[in-house]
Amino acid sequence: MSVHKSELPAQQGAQRQSAPKPGGAQPQLQMTDEARAATFLVTARNERGEQVETPIAGEHPLTIYLDKQEIVTLMTLGQAPEALAIGYLRNQRLVRAAADIASVQVDWETAACAVITRTPVSDLGKRLKKRTVTTGCGQGTVFGDLMEEVGGLQLSTHARIDAAGLYALLDAVRKHETVYKQAGAVHGCALLCGSEILYFVEDVGRHNAVDAIAGLMWLDGISGEDKVFYTTGRLTSEMVIKCAQMRVPILVSRSGLTRMGWDVARQVGLTMIGRAKGKHYLLFTGHERFALDS
Amino acid sequence: MSVHKSELPAQQGAQRQSAPKPGGAQPQLQMTDEARAATFLVTARNERGEQVETPIAGEHPLTIYLDKQEIVTLMTLGQAPEALAIGYLRNQRLVRAAADIASVQVDWETAACAVITRTPVSDLGKRLKKRTVTTGCGQGTVFGDLMEEVGGLQLSTHARIDAAGLYALLDAVRKHETVYKQAGAVHGCALLCGSEILYFVEDVGRHNAVDAIAGLMWLDGISGEDKVFYTTGRLTSEMVIKCAQMRVPILVSRSGLTRMGWDVARQVGLTMIGRAKGKHYLLFTGHERFALDS
Repeated sequence: MSVHKSELPAQQGAQRQSAPKPGGAQPQLQMTDEARAATFLVTARNERGEQVETPIAGEHPLTIYLDKQEIVTLMTLGQAPEALAIGYLRNQRLVRAAADIASVQVDWETAACAVITRTPVSDLGKRLKKRTVTTGCGQGTVFGDLMEEVGGLQLSTHARIDAAGLYALLDAVRKHETVYKQAGAVHGCALLCGSEILYFVEDVGRHNAVDAIAGLMWLDGISGEDKVFYTTGRLTSEMVIKCAQMRVPILVSRSGLTRMGWDVARQVGLTMIGRAKGKHYLLFTGHERFALDS
Repeated sequence: MSVHKSELPAQQGAQRQSAPKPGGAQPQLQMTDEARAATFLVTARNERGEQVETPIAGEHPLTIYLDKQEIVTLMTLGQAPEALAIGYLRNQRLVRAAADIASVQVDWETAACAVITRTPVSDLGKRLKKRTVTTGCGQGTVFGDLMEEVGGLQLSTHARIDAAGLYALLDAVRKHETVYKQAGAVHGCALLCGSEILYFVEDVGRHNAVDAIAGLMWLDGISGEDKVFYTTGRLTSEMVIKCAQMRVPILVSRSGLTRMGWDVARQVGLTMIGRAKGKHYLLFTGHERFALDS
Protein backbone atom coordinates (compact mmCIF):
# COMPACT_ATOMS: atom_id res chain seq x y z
CA MET A 1 0.00 0.00 0.00
CA SER A 2 3.05 2.23 -0.11
CA VAL A 3 1.70 3.92 -3.20
CA HIS A 4 -0.72 5.50 -0.75
CA LYS A 5 2.03 6.71 1.53
CA SER A 6 4.38 7.94 -1.12
CA GLU A 7 3.84 10.66 -3.65
CA LEU A 8 5.37 9.59 -6.91
CA PRO A 9 7.79 12.29 -8.09
CA ALA A 10 6.25 14.46 -10.77
CA GLN A 11 8.89 13.49 -13.29
CA GLN A 12 7.69 9.94 -12.94
CA GLY A 13 4.46 11.07 -14.55
CA ALA A 14 1.98 9.78 -12.02
CA GLN A 15 1.31 12.07 -9.12
CA ARG A 16 -1.11 12.12 -6.23
CA GLN A 17 -1.54 15.23 -4.19
CA SER A 18 -4.43 14.01 -2.07
CA ALA A 19 -4.20 12.12 1.19
CA PRO A 20 -6.01 8.76 1.25
CA LYS A 21 -9.69 9.41 1.88
CA PRO A 22 -11.87 7.45 4.27
CA GLY A 23 -13.88 4.92 2.37
CA GLY A 24 -10.92 4.06 0.18
CA ALA A 25 -10.16 0.41 -0.44
CA GLN A 26 -6.65 0.56 1.00
CA PRO A 27 -7.39 -0.75 4.54
CA GLN A 28 -7.99 -4.25 3.18
CA LEU A 29 -5.93 -4.08 0.03
CA GLN A 30 -2.58 -5.78 -0.50
CA MET A 31 -0.79 -3.84 -3.20
CA THR A 32 2.69 -3.49 -4.66
CA ASP A 33 4.19 -0.12 -5.65
CA GLU A 34 6.04 -0.87 -8.85
CA ALA A 35 6.20 2.42 -10.72
CA ARG A 36 8.84 2.34 -13.44
CA ALA A 37 11.27 5.01 -14.58
CA ALA A 38 9.39 7.26 -16.98
CA THR A 39 12.16 8.19 -19.38
CA PHE A 40 15.32 6.79 -20.90
CA LEU A 41 18.16 8.72 -22.49
CA VAL A 42 19.01 7.84 -26.08
CA THR A 43 21.38 9.49 -28.54
CA ALA A 44 19.88 11.05 -31.66
CA ARG A 45 21.30 13.26 -34.40
CA ASN A 46 19.70 16.63 -35.06
CA GLU A 47 19.35 18.69 -38.26
CA ARG A 48 22.86 20.10 -37.76
CA GLY A 49 24.27 16.61 -37.59
CA GLU A 50 25.00 17.02 -33.89
CA GLN A 51 24.66 14.07 -31.54
CA VAL A 52 22.14 14.97 -28.85
CA GLU A 53 21.09 13.02 -25.78
CA THR A 54 17.30 12.87 -25.76
CA PRO A 55 14.93 11.49 -23.16
CA ILE A 56 12.28 9.15 -24.55
CA ALA A 57 9.23 7.77 -22.79
CA GLY A 58 9.20 4.24 -21.41
CA GLU A 59 6.76 1.69 -22.77
CA HIS A 60 6.27 -1.63 -21.05
CA PRO A 61 3.87 -4.53 -21.61
CA LEU A 62 1.77 -5.38 -18.56
CA THR A 63 -0.56 -8.37 -18.65
CA ILE A 64 -3.51 -8.11 -16.28
CA TYR A 65 -4.80 -11.30 -14.68
CA LEU A 66 -8.14 -11.19 -12.87
CA ASP A 67 -8.49 -14.10 -10.44
CA LYS A 68 -5.84 -15.92 -12.48
CA GLN A 69 -7.63 -15.41 -15.80
CA GLU A 70 -5.65 -13.43 -18.39
CA ILE A 71 -7.62 -10.32 -19.32
CA VAL A 72 -5.44 -8.14 -21.48
CA THR A 73 -1.91 -6.92 -22.10
CA LEU A 74 -1.55 -3.16 -21.90
CA MET A 75 1.44 -1.21 -23.11
CA THR A 76 2.11 1.38 -20.46
CA LEU A 77 4.55 4.02 -19.27
CA GLY A 78 4.28 2.14 -15.99
CA GLN A 79 3.94 5.03 -13.60
CA ALA A 80 0.95 3.73 -11.68
CA PRO A 81 0.62 0.11 -12.81
CA GLU A 82 -1.50 -1.02 -9.84
CA ALA A 83 -3.93 1.87 -10.26
CA LEU A 84 -3.96 1.27 -14.02
CA ALA A 85 -4.96 -2.37 -13.54
CA ILE A 86 -7.65 -1.47 -11.02
CA GLY A 87 -8.98 1.38 -13.16
CA TYR A 88 -8.94 -0.74 -16.29
CA LEU A 89 -10.99 -3.45 -14.57
CA ARG A 90 -13.29 -0.75 -13.16
CA ASN A 91 -13.87 0.99 -16.47
CA GLN A 92 -14.33 -2.31 -18.27
CA ARG A 93 -16.93 -3.21 -15.64
CA LEU A 94 -15.03 -6.40 -14.81
CA VAL A 95 -14.84 -5.43 -11.12
CA ARG A 96 -17.86 -3.70 -9.61
CA ALA A 97 -16.44 -2.16 -6.43
CA ALA A 98 -13.04 -1.26 -5.00
CA ALA A 99 -13.87 -3.26 -1.88
CA ASP A 100 -14.12 -6.40 -4.03
CA ILE A 101 -10.37 -6.25 -4.65
CA ALA A 102 -8.23 -8.25 -2.21
CA SER A 103 -4.80 -7.76 -3.78
CA VAL A 104 -2.98 -6.19 -6.71
CA GLN A 105 0.51 -7.50 -7.36
CA VAL A 106 2.67 -6.13 -10.16
CA ASP A 107 5.78 -8.07 -11.16
CA TRP A 108 7.79 -6.50 -13.98
CA GLU A 109 10.00 -9.58 -14.22
CA THR A 110 7.03 -11.40 -15.69
CA ALA A 111 5.33 -8.19 -16.96
CA ALA A 112 2.26 -9.30 -15.05
CA CYS A 113 -0.28 -7.73 -12.72
CA ALA A 114 -2.29 -10.24 -10.70
CA VAL A 115 -5.56 -8.91 -9.33
CA ILE A 116 -7.38 -11.11 -6.85
CA THR A 117 -10.97 -10.34 -5.86
CA ARG A 118 -12.93 -11.33 -2.77
CA THR A 119 -15.98 -12.20 -4.85
CA PRO A 120 -14.91 -13.49 -8.28
CA VAL A 121 -16.89 -12.07 -11.21
CA SER A 122 -19.49 -14.68 -12.09
CA ASP A 123 -20.00 -14.01 -15.79
CA LEU A 124 -16.38 -13.12 -16.60
CA GLY A 125 -16.21 -15.49 -19.55
CA LYS A 126 -19.33 -13.96 -21.08
CA ARG A 127 -18.05 -10.44 -20.52
CA LEU A 128 -14.73 -11.20 -22.15
CA LYS A 129 -16.46 -12.69 -25.15
CA LYS A 130 -17.92 -9.39 -26.31
CA ARG A 131 -15.09 -7.24 -27.58
CA THR A 132 -15.65 -3.70 -28.74
CA VAL A 133 -12.62 -1.86 -29.96
CA THR A 134 -12.90 1.87 -29.67
CA THR A 135 -11.19 5.04 -30.70
CA GLY A 136 -8.03 6.53 -29.34
CA CYS A 137 -5.33 4.82 -31.17
CA GLY A 138 -8.60 3.81 -32.82
CA GLN A 139 -8.32 0.34 -31.48
CA GLY A 140 -8.74 0.56 -27.74
CA THR A 141 -10.57 -2.30 -26.14
CA VAL A 142 -13.78 -2.17 -24.18
CA PHE A 143 -15.43 -5.30 -22.95
CA GLY A 144 -19.20 -5.41 -22.65
CA ASP A 145 -21.65 -2.86 -23.88
CA LEU A 146 -20.47 0.39 -22.32
CA MET A 147 -22.50 2.49 -24.69
CA GLU A 148 -25.66 0.89 -23.38
CA GLU A 149 -24.62 1.43 -19.77
CA VAL A 150 -23.98 5.10 -20.42
CA GLY A 151 -27.61 5.62 -21.30
CA GLY A 152 -28.60 5.20 -17.67
CA LEU A 153 -25.98 7.56 -16.24
CA GLN A 154 -27.02 10.77 -14.49
CA LEU A 155 -24.24 13.29 -13.81
CA SER A 156 -24.37 15.78 -10.94
CA THR A 157 -26.22 18.98 -11.80
CA HIS A 158 -24.66 20.87 -8.87
CA ALA A 159 -21.12 21.16 -10.22
CA ARG A 160 -20.17 24.54 -11.66
CA ILE A 161 -17.19 26.07 -13.39
CA ASP A 162 -16.59 29.63 -14.58
CA ALA A 163 -14.07 31.11 -17.02
CA ALA A 164 -11.75 32.26 -14.21
CA GLY A 165 -11.80 28.77 -12.70
CA LEU A 166 -11.12 27.22 -16.07
CA TYR A 167 -8.14 29.53 -16.64
CA ALA A 168 -6.78 28.73 -13.18
CA LEU A 169 -7.17 25.03 -13.94
CA LEU A 170 -5.39 25.34 -17.28
CA ASP A 171 -2.62 27.32 -15.61
CA ALA A 172 -2.16 24.63 -12.94
CA VAL A 173 -1.92 21.96 -15.61
CA ARG A 174 0.46 24.09 -17.70
CA LYS A 175 2.82 24.57 -14.75
CA HIS A 176 2.77 20.89 -13.78
CA GLU A 177 6.04 19.03 -14.29
CA THR A 178 5.45 16.39 -16.89
CA VAL A 179 7.08 13.57 -18.76
CA TYR A 180 5.61 15.17 -21.88
CA LYS A 181 7.78 18.25 -21.43
CA GLN A 182 10.85 16.01 -21.25
CA ALA A 183 10.11 13.30 -23.75
CA GLY A 184 6.78 13.88 -25.48
CA ALA A 185 5.01 10.76 -26.73
CA VAL A 186 2.68 10.59 -23.74
CA HIS A 187 -0.78 11.84 -22.93
CA GLY A 188 -1.64 13.41 -19.61
CA CYS A 189 -4.84 13.29 -17.60
CA ALA A 190 -5.65 15.09 -14.39
CA LEU A 191 -8.45 15.00 -11.86
CA LEU A 192 -8.98 18.40 -10.34
CA CYS A 193 -11.04 19.90 -7.54
CA GLY A 194 -11.38 23.47 -8.73
CA SER A 195 -7.87 24.32 -9.85
CA GLU A 196 -6.20 21.90 -7.42
CA ILE A 197 -4.69 18.89 -9.14
CA LEU A 198 -5.62 15.78 -7.14
CA TYR A 199 -4.07 13.31 -9.56
CA PHE A 200 -1.94 13.75 -12.62
CA VAL A 201 -1.15 10.64 -14.63
CA GLU A 202 0.67 10.35 -17.91
CA ASP A 203 0.91 7.30 -20.11
CA VAL A 204 1.89 6.31 -23.63
CA GLY A 205 -1.80 5.71 -24.10
CA ARG A 206 -4.36 8.30 -23.08
CA HIS A 207 -6.84 5.59 -22.12
CA ASN A 208 -4.31 4.13 -19.71
CA ALA A 209 -3.97 7.52 -18.06
CA VAL A 210 -7.75 7.78 -17.66
CA ASP A 211 -7.96 4.25 -16.28
CA ALA A 212 -5.14 4.88 -13.81
CA ILE A 213 -6.99 7.90 -12.45
CA ALA A 214 -10.18 5.84 -12.18
CA GLY A 215 -8.12 3.35 -10.17
CA LEU A 216 -6.66 6.02 -7.88
CA MET A 217 -10.16 7.41 -7.27
CA TRP A 218 -11.33 3.97 -6.20
CA LEU A 219 -8.28 3.43 -4.00
CA ASP A 220 -8.85 6.74 -2.22
CA GLY A 221 -12.63 6.51 -2.20
CA ILE A 222 -12.88 9.76 -4.11
CA SER A 223 -16.14 10.69 -5.82
CA GLY A 224 -16.08 12.36 -9.22
CA GLU A 225 -19.29 14.33 -8.73
CA ASP A 226 -17.65 17.64 -7.79
CA LYS A 227 -14.50 17.22 -9.85
CA VAL A 228 -13.17 18.29 -13.22
CA PHE A 229 -11.36 15.89 -15.53
CA TYR A 230 -8.64 17.28 -17.78
CA THR A 231 -6.99 15.45 -20.65
CA THR A 232 -4.45 16.42 -23.27
CA GLY A 233 -6.12 13.87 -25.53
CA ARG A 234 -8.99 14.07 -27.98
CA LEU A 235 -12.54 13.75 -26.74
CA THR A 236 -13.63 10.59 -28.49
CA SER A 237 -16.62 8.49 -27.46
CA GLU A 238 -14.59 6.30 -25.12
CA MET A 239 -13.03 9.25 -23.30
CA VAL A 240 -16.44 10.75 -22.68
CA ILE A 241 -17.88 7.39 -21.60
CA LYS A 242 -15.07 6.82 -19.11
CA CYS A 243 -15.42 10.32 -17.71
CA ALA A 244 -19.16 9.75 -17.28
CA GLN A 245 -18.52 6.34 -15.68
CA MET A 246 -16.37 8.10 -13.09
CA ARG A 247 -19.32 10.48 -12.56
CA VAL A 248 -17.16 13.48 -13.37
CA PRO A 249 -19.56 16.12 -14.80
CA ILE A 250 -17.01 18.46 -16.36
CA LEU A 251 -14.47 17.36 -18.99
CA VAL A 252 -11.78 19.69 -20.31
CA SER A 253 -9.39 18.95 -23.15
CA ARG A 254 -6.61 20.79 -24.91
CA SER A 255 -7.66 18.95 -28.06
CA GLY A 256 -10.75 18.63 -30.21
CA LEU A 257 -13.60 16.18 -30.11
CA THR A 258 -15.40 13.71 -32.31
CA ARG A 259 -19.05 13.50 -33.28
CA MET A 260 -19.63 10.49 -31.05
CA GLY A 261 -17.87 12.14 -28.12
CA TRP A 262 -20.22 15.06 -28.62
CA ASP A 263 -23.27 12.80 -28.91
CA VAL A 264 -22.43 10.87 -25.73
CA ALA A 265 -21.66 14.08 -23.81
CA ARG A 266 -25.11 15.48 -24.66
CA GLN A 267 -26.73 12.14 -23.86
CA VAL A 268 -25.30 12.03 -20.33
CA GLY A 269 -25.42 15.80 -19.76
CA LEU A 270 -21.67 16.24 -19.51
CA THR A 271 -20.12 19.72 -19.66
CA MET A 272 -17.49 19.37 -22.37
CA ILE A 273 -14.89 22.04 -23.02
CA GLY A 274 -12.45 21.50 -25.87
CA ARG A 275 -9.54 23.35 -27.49
CA ALA A 276 -8.79 24.70 -24.00
CA LYS A 277 -5.35 26.32 -24.02
CA GLY A 278 -4.16 29.60 -22.55
CA LYS A 279 -7.12 31.98 -22.75
CA HIS A 280 -8.98 30.11 -25.45
CA TYR A 281 -11.58 27.38 -25.20
CA LEU A 282 -14.75 26.13 -26.81
CA LEU A 283 -17.71 25.14 -24.64
CA PHE A 284 -19.44 22.38 -26.57
CA THR A 285 -22.02 20.83 -24.25
CA GLY A 286 -23.51 21.22 -20.77
CA HIS A 287 -23.68 25.04 -20.86
CA GLU A 288 -25.75 25.07 -17.66
CA ARG A 289 -22.69 24.29 -15.51
CA PHE A 290 -20.57 27.01 -17.07
CA ALA A 291 -20.52 30.71 -16.25
CA LEU A 292 -18.55 33.24 -18.30
CA ASP A 293 -18.29 35.46 -15.21
CA SER A 294 -18.11 34.41 -11.56
CA MET B 1 -14.18 -1.16 -56.97
CA SER B 2 -15.01 2.51 -57.54
CA VAL B 3 -12.60 3.47 -54.77
CA HIS B 4 -9.97 2.55 -57.31
CA LYS B 5 -11.41 4.80 -59.95
CA SER B 6 -12.20 7.76 -57.78
CA GLU B 7 -9.89 9.89 -55.75
CA LEU B 8 -11.53 10.69 -52.46
CA PRO B 9 -11.60 14.47 -51.97
CA ALA B 10 -8.86 15.63 -49.63
CA GLN B 11 -11.34 17.09 -47.18
CA GLN B 12 -12.70 13.58 -46.75
CA GLY B 13 -9.40 12.71 -45.17
CA ALA B 14 -8.48 9.68 -47.23
CA GLN B 15 -6.73 10.41 -50.47
CA ARG B 16 -5.02 8.33 -53.11
CA GLN B 17 -2.84 10.00 -55.66
CA SER B 18 -1.58 6.83 -57.30
CA ALA B 19 -3.19 4.95 -60.14
CA PRO B 20 -3.98 1.29 -59.45
CA LYS B 21 -0.79 -0.71 -59.92
CA PRO B 22 -0.54 -4.01 -61.78
CA GLY B 23 -0.47 -6.83 -59.29
CA GLY B 24 -3.11 -5.19 -57.14
CA ALA B 25 -6.00 -7.28 -55.86
CA GLN B 26 -8.71 -5.22 -57.55
CA PRO B 27 -9.25 -7.33 -60.70
CA GLN B 28 -10.89 -10.09 -58.66
CA LEU B 29 -12.15 -8.03 -55.75
CA GLN B 30 -15.77 -7.04 -55.15
CA MET B 31 -15.71 -3.92 -53.00
CA THR B 32 -18.03 -1.16 -51.89
CA ASP B 33 -16.96 2.49 -51.72
CA GLU B 34 -18.64 3.75 -48.57
CA ALA B 35 -16.51 6.65 -47.38
CA ARG B 36 -18.38 8.83 -44.89
CA ALA B 37 -18.44 12.59 -44.48
CA ALA B 38 -15.41 13.53 -42.42
CA THR B 39 -16.76 16.46 -40.44
CA PHE B 40 -19.98 17.74 -38.91
CA LEU B 41 -20.79 21.31 -37.91
CA VAL B 42 -21.75 21.90 -34.29
CA THR B 43 -22.33 25.11 -32.38
CA ALA B 44 -19.97 25.92 -29.53
CA ARG B 45 -19.44 29.01 -27.37
CA ASN B 46 -16.00 30.61 -27.27
CA GLU B 47 -14.21 32.57 -24.53
CA ARG B 48 -16.02 35.75 -25.54
CA GLY B 49 -19.35 34.04 -25.13
CA GLU B 50 -19.91 34.07 -28.87
CA GLN B 51 -21.70 31.19 -30.54
CA VAL B 52 -19.39 29.73 -33.19
CA GLU B 53 -20.05 27.01 -35.74
CA THR B 54 -17.24 24.48 -35.47
CA PRO B 55 -16.51 21.43 -37.59
CA ILE B 56 -15.88 18.25 -35.58
CA ALA B 57 -14.54 14.94 -36.82
CA GLY B 58 -16.88 12.03 -37.48
CA GLU B 59 -16.57 8.83 -35.48
CA HIS B 60 -18.43 5.71 -36.49
CA PRO B 61 -18.42 2.14 -35.21
CA LEU B 62 -17.58 -0.43 -37.88
CA THR B 63 -17.70 -4.13 -37.04
CA ILE B 64 -15.45 -6.28 -39.19
CA TYR B 65 -16.61 -9.79 -40.04
CA LEU B 66 -14.12 -12.20 -41.59
CA ASP B 67 -15.89 -15.07 -43.38
CA LYS B 68 -18.96 -14.33 -41.22
CA GLN B 69 -17.02 -14.44 -37.95
CA GLU B 70 -17.08 -11.20 -35.94
CA ILE B 71 -13.51 -9.98 -35.49
CA VAL B 72 -13.64 -6.53 -33.95
CA THR B 73 -15.51 -3.24 -33.84
CA LEU B 74 -13.37 -0.25 -34.80
CA MET B 75 -14.34 3.35 -34.22
CA THR B 76 -13.37 5.18 -37.35
CA LEU B 77 -13.62 8.45 -39.21
CA GLY B 78 -14.86 6.25 -42.02
CA GLN B 79 -12.91 7.72 -44.91
CA ALA B 80 -11.59 4.46 -46.31
CA PRO B 81 -13.59 1.77 -44.48
CA GLU B 82 -12.89 -0.98 -47.00
CA ALA B 83 -9.16 -0.33 -46.98
CA LEU B 84 -9.25 -0.06 -43.18
CA ALA B 85 -10.85 -3.50 -42.88
CA ILE B 86 -8.38 -5.03 -45.31
CA GLY B 87 -5.41 -3.35 -43.68
CA TYR B 88 -6.57 -4.29 -40.21
CA LEU B 89 -6.85 -7.95 -41.22
CA ARG B 90 -3.48 -7.69 -42.98
CA ASN B 91 -1.67 -6.12 -40.01
CA GLN B 92 -3.31 -8.53 -37.59
CA ARG B 93 -2.09 -11.35 -39.81
CA LEU B 94 -5.64 -12.67 -40.12
CA VAL B 95 -5.43 -12.56 -43.93
CA ARG B 96 -2.12 -13.49 -45.54
CA ALA B 97 -2.44 -12.07 -49.05
CA ALA B 98 -4.57 -9.50 -50.87
CA ALA B 99 -5.44 -12.12 -53.48
CA ASP B 100 -7.10 -14.20 -50.74
CA ILE B 101 -9.83 -11.58 -50.43
CA ALA B 102 -12.90 -12.16 -52.58
CA SER B 103 -15.10 -9.30 -51.39
CA VAL B 104 -15.29 -6.39 -48.95
CA GLN B 105 -18.76 -5.01 -48.33
CA VAL B 106 -19.33 -2.05 -46.00
CA ASP B 107 -22.89 -1.30 -44.89
CA TRP B 108 -23.21 1.71 -42.57
CA GLU B 109 -26.86 0.88 -41.91
CA THR B 110 -25.65 -2.10 -39.90
CA ALA B 111 -22.22 -0.55 -39.17
CA ALA B 112 -20.70 -3.72 -40.59
CA CYS B 113 -17.92 -4.62 -42.98
CA ALA B 114 -18.13 -8.17 -44.32
CA VAL B 115 -14.86 -9.55 -45.67
CA ILE B 116 -15.06 -12.83 -47.55
CA THR B 117 -11.90 -14.76 -48.40
CA ARG B 118 -11.27 -17.35 -51.11
CA THR B 119 -9.35 -19.56 -48.68
CA PRO B 120 -10.74 -19.15 -45.14
CA VAL B 121 -8.10 -18.81 -42.39
CA SER B 122 -7.73 -22.23 -40.83
CA ASP B 123 -6.66 -21.34 -37.31
CA LEU B 124 -8.80 -18.19 -36.96
CA GLY B 125 -10.23 -19.26 -33.63
CA LYS B 126 -6.77 -19.84 -32.20
CA ARG B 127 -5.53 -16.51 -33.53
CA LEU B 128 -8.46 -14.62 -32.03
CA LYS B 129 -7.85 -16.24 -28.67
CA LYS B 130 -4.54 -14.48 -28.10
CA ARG B 131 -5.28 -10.84 -27.45
CA THR B 132 -2.49 -8.34 -26.97
CA VAL B 133 -3.53 -4.78 -26.36
CA THR B 134 -0.96 -2.25 -27.37
CA THR B 135 -0.14 1.40 -27.10
CA GLY B 136 -1.68 4.24 -28.99
CA CYS B 137 -4.66 5.06 -27.01
CA GLY B 138 -2.70 2.51 -25.02
CA GLN B 139 -5.26 -0.12 -25.66
CA GLY B 140 -5.07 -0.97 -29.31
CA THR B 141 -5.65 -4.57 -30.17
CA VAL B 142 -3.24 -6.91 -31.87
CA PHE B 143 -4.04 -10.56 -32.36
CA GLY B 144 -1.26 -13.09 -32.35
CA ASP B 145 2.34 -12.51 -31.47
CA LEU B 146 3.39 -9.67 -33.72
CA MET B 147 6.47 -8.94 -31.67
CA GLU B 148 7.77 -12.42 -32.42
CA GLU B 149 7.08 -12.02 -36.14
CA VAL B 150 8.99 -8.77 -36.23
CA GLY B 151 12.18 -10.56 -35.20
CA GLY B 152 12.41 -12.18 -38.63
CA LEU B 153 11.81 -9.03 -40.65
CA GLN B 154 14.52 -7.64 -42.92
CA LEU B 155 13.98 -4.13 -44.28
CA SER B 156 15.47 -2.91 -47.56
CA THR B 157 18.98 -1.55 -47.20
CA HIS B 158 18.78 0.26 -50.55
CA ALA B 159 16.36 3.01 -49.54
CA ARG B 160 17.92 6.41 -48.87
CA ILE B 161 16.73 9.80 -47.66
CA ASP B 162 18.62 13.05 -47.23
CA ALA B 163 17.81 16.23 -45.33
CA ALA B 164 16.58 18.04 -48.47
CA GLY B 165 14.28 15.12 -49.27
CA LEU B 166 13.00 15.06 -45.70
CA TYR B 167 12.23 18.79 -45.80
CA ALA B 168 10.42 18.39 -49.14
CA LEU B 169 8.42 15.52 -47.65
CA LEU B 170 7.49 17.56 -44.57
CA ASP B 171 6.52 20.47 -46.81
CA ALA B 172 4.25 18.24 -48.92
CA VAL B 173 2.55 16.94 -45.79
CA ARG B 174 2.24 20.45 -44.35
CA LYS B 175 0.52 21.75 -47.50
CA HIS B 176 -1.84 18.78 -47.72
CA GLU B 177 -5.51 19.59 -47.12
CA THR B 178 -6.56 17.75 -44.01
CA VAL B 179 -9.49 17.08 -41.73
CA TYR B 180 -7.11 17.94 -38.91
CA LYS B 181 -6.83 21.53 -40.11
CA GLN B 182 -10.63 21.78 -40.07
CA ALA B 183 -11.62 19.80 -37.03
CA GLY B 184 -8.60 18.43 -35.21
CA ALA B 185 -9.13 15.22 -33.25
CA VAL B 186 -7.67 13.01 -35.98
CA HIS B 187 -4.28 11.59 -36.77
CA GLY B 188 -2.86 11.55 -40.26
CA CYS B 189 -0.61 9.03 -41.96
CA ALA B 190 0.93 9.22 -45.39
CA LEU B 191 2.83 6.86 -47.64
CA LEU B 192 5.31 8.76 -49.75
CA CYS B 193 7.64 8.00 -52.64
CA GLY B 194 10.28 10.67 -52.15
CA SER B 195 8.21 13.78 -51.47
CA GLU B 196 5.21 12.55 -53.49
CA ILE B 197 2.25 11.62 -51.33
CA LEU B 198 0.83 8.33 -52.63
CA TYR B 199 -1.77 7.95 -49.90
CA PHE B 200 -2.90 10.24 -47.14
CA VAL B 201 -5.36 8.83 -44.62
CA GLU B 202 -6.69 10.42 -41.48
CA ASP B 203 -8.66 8.74 -38.76
CA VAL B 204 -9.81 9.32 -35.20
CA GLY B 205 -7.34 6.59 -34.35
CA ARG B 206 -3.80 6.69 -35.67
CA HIS B 207 -3.71 2.89 -35.90
CA ASN B 208 -6.75 2.96 -38.16
CA ALA B 209 -4.95 5.39 -40.46
CA VAL B 210 -1.93 3.08 -40.63
CA ASP B 211 -4.11 0.04 -41.26
CA ALA B 212 -6.04 1.84 -44.01
CA ILE B 213 -2.79 2.64 -45.80
CA ALA B 214 -1.69 -1.00 -45.44
CA GLY B 215 -5.01 -1.92 -47.06
CA LEU B 216 -4.57 0.56 -49.92
CA MET B 217 -1.06 -0.77 -50.54
CA TRP B 218 -2.45 -4.29 -50.85
CA LEU B 219 -5.26 -3.16 -53.12
CA ASP B 220 -2.85 -1.40 -55.45
CA GLY B 221 -0.10 -4.01 -55.17
CA ILE B 222 2.32 -1.39 -53.90
CA SER B 223 5.53 -2.46 -52.16
CA GLY B 224 6.79 -0.50 -49.18
CA GLU B 225 10.47 -1.18 -49.79
CA ASP B 226 11.28 2.13 -51.49
CA LYS B 227 8.74 4.25 -49.61
CA VAL B 228 8.64 6.55 -46.62
CA PHE B 229 5.90 6.37 -44.02
CA TYR B 230 4.85 9.60 -42.29
CA THR B 231 2.62 9.85 -39.25
CA THR B 232 1.49 12.71 -37.05
CA GLY B 233 1.29 10.18 -34.22
CA ARG B 234 3.77 8.97 -31.67
CA LEU B 235 6.21 6.22 -32.56
CA THR B 236 5.15 3.51 -30.15
CA SER B 237 6.01 -0.16 -30.54
CA GLU B 238 2.90 -0.94 -32.56
CA MET B 239 3.46 1.89 -35.02
CA VAL B 240 7.00 0.70 -35.66
CA ILE B 241 5.87 -2.93 -35.96
CA LYS B 242 3.17 -2.04 -38.48
CA CYS B 243 5.58 0.07 -40.52
CA ALA B 244 8.04 -2.84 -40.56
CA GLN B 245 5.27 -5.28 -41.51
CA MET B 246 4.57 -3.08 -44.54
CA ARG B 247 8.32 -3.33 -45.30
CA VAL B 248 8.65 0.46 -45.25
CA PRO B 249 12.27 1.15 -44.19
CA ILE B 250 11.92 4.84 -43.30
CA LEU B 251 9.47 6.15 -40.69
CA VAL B 252 8.98 9.86 -40.05
CA SER B 253 6.88 11.39 -37.29
CA ARG B 254 6.06 14.87 -36.14
CA SER B 255 5.89 13.46 -32.62
CA GLY B 256 8.20 11.68 -30.24
CA LEU B 257 8.82 8.01 -29.65
CA THR B 258 8.79 5.44 -26.89
CA ARG B 259 11.51 3.15 -25.65
CA MET B 260 9.86 0.09 -27.20
CA GLY B 261 9.36 1.89 -30.50
CA TRP B 262 13.07 2.65 -30.42
CA ASP B 263 13.97 -0.93 -29.47
CA VAL B 264 11.88 -2.45 -32.26
CA ALA B 265 13.21 0.06 -34.82
CA ARG B 266 16.78 -0.94 -34.01
CA GLN B 267 15.84 -4.62 -34.03
CA VAL B 268 14.42 -4.48 -37.57
CA GLY B 269 16.90 -1.88 -38.86
CA LEU B 270 14.29 0.82 -39.46
CA THR B 271 15.33 4.42 -40.08
CA MET B 272 13.29 6.37 -37.58
CA ILE B 273 13.07 10.15 -37.64
CA GLY B 274 11.04 11.87 -34.92
CA ARG B 275 10.10 15.42 -33.91
CA ALA B 276 10.16 16.22 -37.63
CA LYS B 277 8.56 19.62 -38.19
CA GLY B 278 9.66 22.53 -40.34
CA LYS B 279 13.45 22.45 -40.41
CA HIS B 280 13.88 20.40 -37.27
CA TYR B 281 14.10 16.65 -36.77
CA LEU B 282 15.84 14.02 -34.73
CA LEU B 283 17.32 10.96 -36.45
CA PHE B 284 17.00 8.17 -33.91
CA THR B 285 17.83 4.92 -35.68
CA GLY B 286 18.97 3.58 -39.04
CA HIS B 287 21.54 6.34 -39.70
CA GLU B 288 22.93 4.42 -42.68
CA ARG B 289 19.92 5.36 -44.85
CA PHE B 290 20.16 9.05 -44.02
CA ALA B 291 22.43 11.68 -45.54
CA LEU B 292 22.69 15.21 -44.16
CA ASP B 293 23.68 16.42 -47.64
CA SER B 294 22.61 15.04 -51.01
